[in-house]
Amino acid sequence: MQFDHAGVATDDADALAALYETAFDASVAHEETFDGLRVTFLDLGNGYFELLEPLPDAEGAIPRYLDANGPGLHHVALETDDIEAALSAARDAGVELIDETPRPGAWGHEVAFCHPKSTGGVLVEFVEH
Amino acid sequence: MQFDHAGVATDDADALAALYETAFDASVAHEETFDGLRVTFLDLGNGYFELLEPLPDAEGAIPRYLDANGPGLHHVALETDDIEAALSAARDAGVELIDETPRPGAWGHEVAFCHPKSTGGVLVEFVEH
Repeated sequence: MQFDHAGVATDDADALAALYETAFDASVAHEETFDGLRVTFLDLGNGYFELLEPLPDAEGAIPRYLDANGPGLHHVALETDDIEAALSAARDAGVELIDETPRPGAWGHEVAFCHPKSTGGVLVEFVEH
Repeated sequence: MQFDHAGVATDDADALAALYETAFDASVAHEETFDGLRVTFLDLGNGYFELLEPLPDAEGAIPRYLDANGPGLHHVALETDDIEAALSAARDAGVELIDETPRPGAWGHEVAFCHPKSTGGVLVEFVEH
Protein backbone atom coordinates (compact mmCIF):
# COMPACT_ATOMS: atom_id res chain seq x y z
CA MET A 1 0.00 0.00 0.00
CA GLN A 2 1.38 3.40 -0.91
CA PHE A 3 0.18 6.88 -1.82
CA ASP A 4 -1.36 7.06 -5.28
CA HIS A 5 -3.14 10.41 -5.56
CA ALA A 6 -4.91 13.28 -3.87
CA GLY A 7 -8.32 13.87 -5.44
CA VAL A 8 -9.34 17.50 -5.93
CA ALA A 9 -12.88 18.62 -6.79
CA THR A 10 -12.81 21.62 -9.11
CA ASP A 11 -15.04 23.58 -11.42
CA ASP A 12 -12.13 24.55 -13.69
CA ALA A 13 -9.64 21.74 -14.28
CA ASP A 14 -7.84 23.54 -17.10
CA ALA A 15 -7.02 26.56 -14.97
CA LEU A 16 -6.02 24.44 -12.00
CA ALA A 17 -3.83 22.15 -14.13
CA ALA A 18 -2.05 25.16 -15.58
CA LEU A 19 -1.53 26.64 -12.11
CA TYR A 20 -0.32 23.38 -10.54
CA GLU A 21 2.09 22.81 -13.43
CA THR A 22 3.64 26.23 -12.98
CA ALA A 23 3.47 26.44 -9.19
CA PHE A 24 4.03 22.79 -8.20
CA ASP A 25 5.87 21.32 -11.21
CA ALA A 26 2.99 18.83 -11.67
CA SER A 27 2.33 18.38 -15.38
CA VAL A 28 -0.58 16.55 -17.02
CA ALA A 29 0.02 12.80 -17.15
CA HIS A 30 -3.42 11.67 -18.28
CA GLU A 31 -6.82 13.14 -19.14
CA GLU A 32 -10.13 11.49 -19.86
CA THR A 33 -13.88 11.84 -19.51
CA PHE A 34 -15.19 9.29 -17.03
CA ASP A 35 -18.49 8.86 -15.23
CA GLY A 36 -19.73 12.40 -15.79
CA LEU A 37 -16.37 13.95 -14.94
CA ARG A 38 -13.37 15.43 -16.68
CA VAL A 39 -10.53 13.64 -14.90
CA THR A 40 -7.00 15.04 -15.11
CA PHE A 41 -4.01 13.39 -13.46
CA LEU A 42 -1.04 15.66 -12.68
CA ASP A 43 2.29 13.92 -12.13
CA LEU A 44 4.07 14.44 -8.79
CA GLY A 45 6.81 11.88 -9.48
CA ASN A 46 5.72 9.54 -6.68
CA GLY A 47 1.98 9.99 -7.22
CA TYR A 48 -0.59 12.35 -8.69
CA PHE A 49 -3.11 15.05 -8.17
CA GLU A 50 -6.41 13.88 -9.66
CA LEU A 51 -8.51 16.86 -10.73
CA LEU A 52 -12.24 16.09 -10.90
CA GLU A 53 -14.43 18.52 -12.83
CA PRO A 54 -18.09 17.66 -13.42
CA LEU A 55 -19.33 17.79 -16.99
CA PRO A 56 -22.16 20.28 -17.56
CA ASP A 57 -25.40 19.08 -15.90
CA ALA A 58 -23.70 15.94 -14.53
CA GLU A 59 -24.98 14.50 -11.26
CA GLY A 60 -23.07 12.47 -8.69
CA ALA A 61 -20.74 12.72 -5.73
CA ILE A 62 -18.44 15.44 -7.10
CA PRO A 63 -21.15 17.91 -8.18
CA ARG A 64 -22.80 17.36 -4.78
CA TYR A 65 -19.44 17.92 -3.04
CA LEU A 66 -18.86 21.15 -4.97
CA ASP A 67 -22.35 22.40 -4.19
CA ALA A 68 -21.90 21.66 -0.48
CA ASN A 69 -18.25 22.58 0.06
CA GLY A 70 -16.91 24.40 -2.96
CA PRO A 71 -13.70 23.29 -4.67
CA GLY A 72 -10.99 21.55 -2.65
CA LEU A 73 -9.38 18.38 -1.41
CA HIS A 74 -11.85 15.50 -1.84
CA HIS A 75 -10.08 12.19 -1.14
CA VAL A 76 -6.78 10.34 -0.80
CA ALA A 77 -6.10 7.24 -2.88
CA LEU A 78 -3.78 4.42 -1.84
CA GLU A 79 -2.32 2.08 -4.42
CA THR A 80 -2.39 -1.64 -3.80
CA ASP A 81 -1.29 -4.67 -5.80
CA ASP A 82 -4.33 -6.61 -4.57
CA ILE A 83 -7.47 -4.54 -4.10
CA GLU A 84 -9.55 -7.53 -2.98
CA ALA A 85 -7.05 -8.17 -0.16
CA ALA A 86 -7.03 -4.46 0.72
CA LEU A 87 -10.82 -4.42 0.97
CA SER A 88 -10.78 -7.56 3.09
CA ALA A 89 -8.15 -6.14 5.47
CA ALA A 90 -10.02 -2.83 5.75
CA ARG A 91 -13.31 -4.64 6.44
CA ASP A 92 -11.65 -6.79 9.09
CA ALA A 93 -10.21 -3.63 10.70
CA GLY A 94 -13.74 -2.23 11.08
CA VAL A 95 -13.75 0.09 8.07
CA GLU A 96 -17.14 0.55 6.44
CA LEU A 97 -16.85 0.13 2.68
CA ILE A 98 -18.72 2.23 0.13
CA ASP A 99 -17.71 -0.32 -2.50
CA GLU A 100 -17.80 -3.88 -1.20
CA THR A 101 -16.18 -5.01 -4.46
CA PRO A 102 -13.85 -3.16 -6.85
CA ARG A 103 -15.33 -1.22 -9.73
CA PRO A 104 -13.78 0.33 -12.84
CA GLY A 105 -12.23 3.73 -12.21
CA ALA A 106 -10.50 6.32 -14.35
CA TRP A 107 -7.33 5.45 -16.29
CA GLY A 108 -8.40 1.78 -16.51
CA HIS A 109 -7.82 1.23 -12.78
CA GLU A 110 -9.87 -0.85 -10.38
CA VAL A 111 -11.04 1.27 -7.45
CA ALA A 112 -13.06 1.05 -4.25
CA PHE A 113 -13.88 3.66 -1.60
CA CYS A 114 -14.01 3.44 2.20
CA HIS A 115 -16.67 5.42 4.03
CA PRO A 116 -15.13 8.50 5.70
CA LYS A 117 -17.27 8.13 8.80
CA SER A 118 -15.27 4.97 9.59
CA THR A 119 -11.82 6.41 8.74
CA GLY A 120 -11.63 9.60 10.80
CA GLY A 121 -13.50 11.75 8.28
CA VAL A 122 -11.06 10.97 5.44
CA LEU A 123 -12.45 9.58 2.20
CA VAL A 124 -9.91 6.87 1.29
CA GLU A 125 -9.86 5.17 -2.10
CA PHE A 126 -8.04 1.95 -2.95
CA VAL A 127 -6.59 1.78 -6.47
CA GLU A 128 -5.14 -1.18 -8.32
CA HIS A 129 -3.42 -0.21 -11.56
CA MET B 1 8.61 18.42 -5.98
CA GLN B 2 6.86 15.24 -4.94
CA PHE B 3 4.16 14.08 -2.57
CA ASP B 4 5.23 14.19 1.08
CA HIS B 5 2.12 13.72 3.20
CA ALA B 6 -1.62 14.09 3.59
CA GLY B 7 -2.47 16.01 6.75
CA VAL B 8 -5.44 14.76 8.76
CA ALA B 9 -7.11 16.70 11.57
CA THR B 10 -8.29 14.34 14.30
CA ASP B 11 -9.45 14.38 17.89
CA ASP B 12 -8.06 10.89 18.55
CA ALA B 13 -4.69 10.23 16.92
CA ASP B 14 -4.07 6.99 18.84
CA ALA B 15 -7.27 5.37 17.60
CA LEU B 16 -6.75 6.61 14.06
CA ALA B 17 -3.10 5.46 13.99
CA ALA B 18 -4.15 1.99 15.17
CA LEU B 19 -6.89 1.84 12.53
CA TYR B 20 -4.68 3.08 9.67
CA GLU B 21 -1.95 0.62 10.61
CA THR B 22 -4.36 -2.30 10.49
CA ALA B 23 -6.49 -1.15 7.57
CA PHE B 24 -3.92 0.66 5.40
CA ASP B 25 -0.60 -0.89 6.46
CA ALA B 26 0.61 2.56 7.56
CA SER B 27 2.63 2.21 10.77
CA VAL B 28 3.90 4.99 13.00
CA ALA B 29 7.15 6.48 11.69
CA HIS B 30 7.45 9.47 14.03
CA GLU B 31 5.55 11.13 16.88
CA GLU B 32 6.08 14.41 18.64
CA THR B 33 4.35 17.30 20.34
CA PHE B 34 4.67 20.43 18.26
CA ASP B 35 2.97 23.83 18.34
CA GLY B 36 0.01 22.74 20.48
CA LEU B 37 -0.48 19.51 18.54
CA ARG B 38 0.26 15.83 18.87
CA VAL B 39 1.75 15.07 15.47
CA THR B 40 1.94 11.46 14.27
CA PHE B 41 3.45 10.47 10.93
CA LEU B 42 2.28 7.13 9.47
CA ASP B 43 4.51 5.59 6.81
CA LEU B 44 3.01 4.90 3.37
CA GLY B 45 6.32 3.88 1.78
CA ASN B 46 6.39 6.83 -0.63
CA GLY B 47 5.04 9.39 1.83
CA TYR B 48 3.04 9.74 5.02
CA PHE B 49 -0.23 10.46 6.67
CA GLU B 50 0.31 13.25 9.22
CA LEU B 51 -2.23 13.00 12.03
CA LEU B 52 -2.80 16.30 13.82
CA GLU B 53 -4.51 16.17 17.23
CA PRO B 54 -4.79 19.36 19.27
CA LEU B 55 -3.50 19.21 22.83
CA PRO B 56 -6.15 19.97 25.46
CA ASP B 57 -7.15 23.65 25.40
CA ALA B 58 -4.78 24.38 22.50
CA GLU B 59 -5.74 27.14 20.07
CA GLY B 60 -4.76 27.47 16.43
CA ALA B 61 -5.66 26.38 12.93
CA ILE B 62 -6.32 22.69 13.68
CA PRO B 63 -8.67 23.21 16.65
CA ARG B 64 -10.51 25.81 14.58
CA TYR B 65 -10.70 23.38 11.65
CA LEU B 66 -12.08 20.62 13.87
CA ASP B 67 -14.66 22.95 15.37
CA ALA B 68 -15.81 24.10 11.94
CA ASN B 69 -15.54 20.87 9.91
CA GLY B 70 -15.00 17.94 12.23
CA PRO B 71 -12.16 15.49 11.67
CA GLY B 72 -10.88 14.85 8.14
CA LEU B 73 -8.44 15.66 5.39
CA HIS B 74 -6.78 19.01 6.10
CA HIS B 75 -3.91 19.58 3.66
CA VAL B 76 -1.49 18.06 1.16
CA ALA B 77 2.25 18.54 1.57
CA LEU B 78 4.75 18.54 -1.27
CA GLU B 79 8.42 17.86 -0.61
CA THR B 80 11.01 20.07 -2.19
CA ASP B 81 14.81 20.22 -2.03
CA ASP B 82 14.68 24.02 -2.08
CA ILE B 83 11.73 25.53 -0.25
CA GLU B 84 12.81 29.10 -1.01
CA ALA B 85 12.76 28.31 -4.74
CA ALA B 86 9.38 26.58 -4.36
CA LEU B 87 7.93 29.64 -2.63
CA SER B 88 9.37 31.91 -5.30
CA ALA B 89 7.92 29.77 -8.14
CA ALA B 90 4.52 29.59 -6.44
CA ARG B 91 4.49 33.35 -5.87
CA ASP B 92 5.42 33.97 -9.51
CA ALA B 93 2.57 31.65 -10.59
CA GLY B 94 0.07 33.80 -8.69
CA VAL B 95 -0.24 31.68 -5.55
CA GLU B 96 -0.93 33.64 -2.38
CA LEU B 97 1.40 32.51 0.39
CA ILE B 98 0.38 32.11 4.03
CA ASP B 99 4.08 31.88 4.88
CA GLU B 100 6.22 34.24 2.82
CA THR B 101 9.30 32.59 4.29
CA PRO B 102 9.84 29.03 5.60
CA ARG B 103 9.26 28.31 9.28
CA PRO B 104 10.13 25.34 11.47
CA GLY B 105 7.64 22.48 11.19
CA ALA B 106 7.27 19.10 12.82
CA TRP B 107 10.04 16.46 12.52
CA GLY B 108 12.65 19.20 12.15
CA HIS B 109 11.44 20.16 8.67
CA GLU B 110 11.16 23.60 7.15
CA VAL B 111 7.60 24.28 6.01
CA ALA B 112 5.46 26.95 4.35
CA PHE B 113 1.78 27.00 3.41
CA CYS B 114 -0.01 28.35 0.34
CA HIS B 115 -3.42 29.95 0.78
CA PRO B 116 -6.18 27.59 -0.42
CA LYS B 117 -8.18 30.41 -1.98
CA SER B 118 -5.40 30.74 -4.55
CA THR B 119 -4.94 26.99 -5.18
CA GLY B 120 -8.43 25.74 -5.99
CA GLY B 121 -9.49 25.32 -2.37
CA VAL B 122 -6.60 22.97 -1.54
CA LEU B 123 -4.33 23.84 1.38
CA VAL B 124 -0.86 23.01 0.02
CA GLU B 125 2.21 22.88 2.24
CA PHE B 126 5.81 22.88 1.05
CA VAL B 127 8.21 20.76 3.11
CA GLU B 128 12.00 20.67 2.99
CA HIS B 129 13.45 17.80 5.01
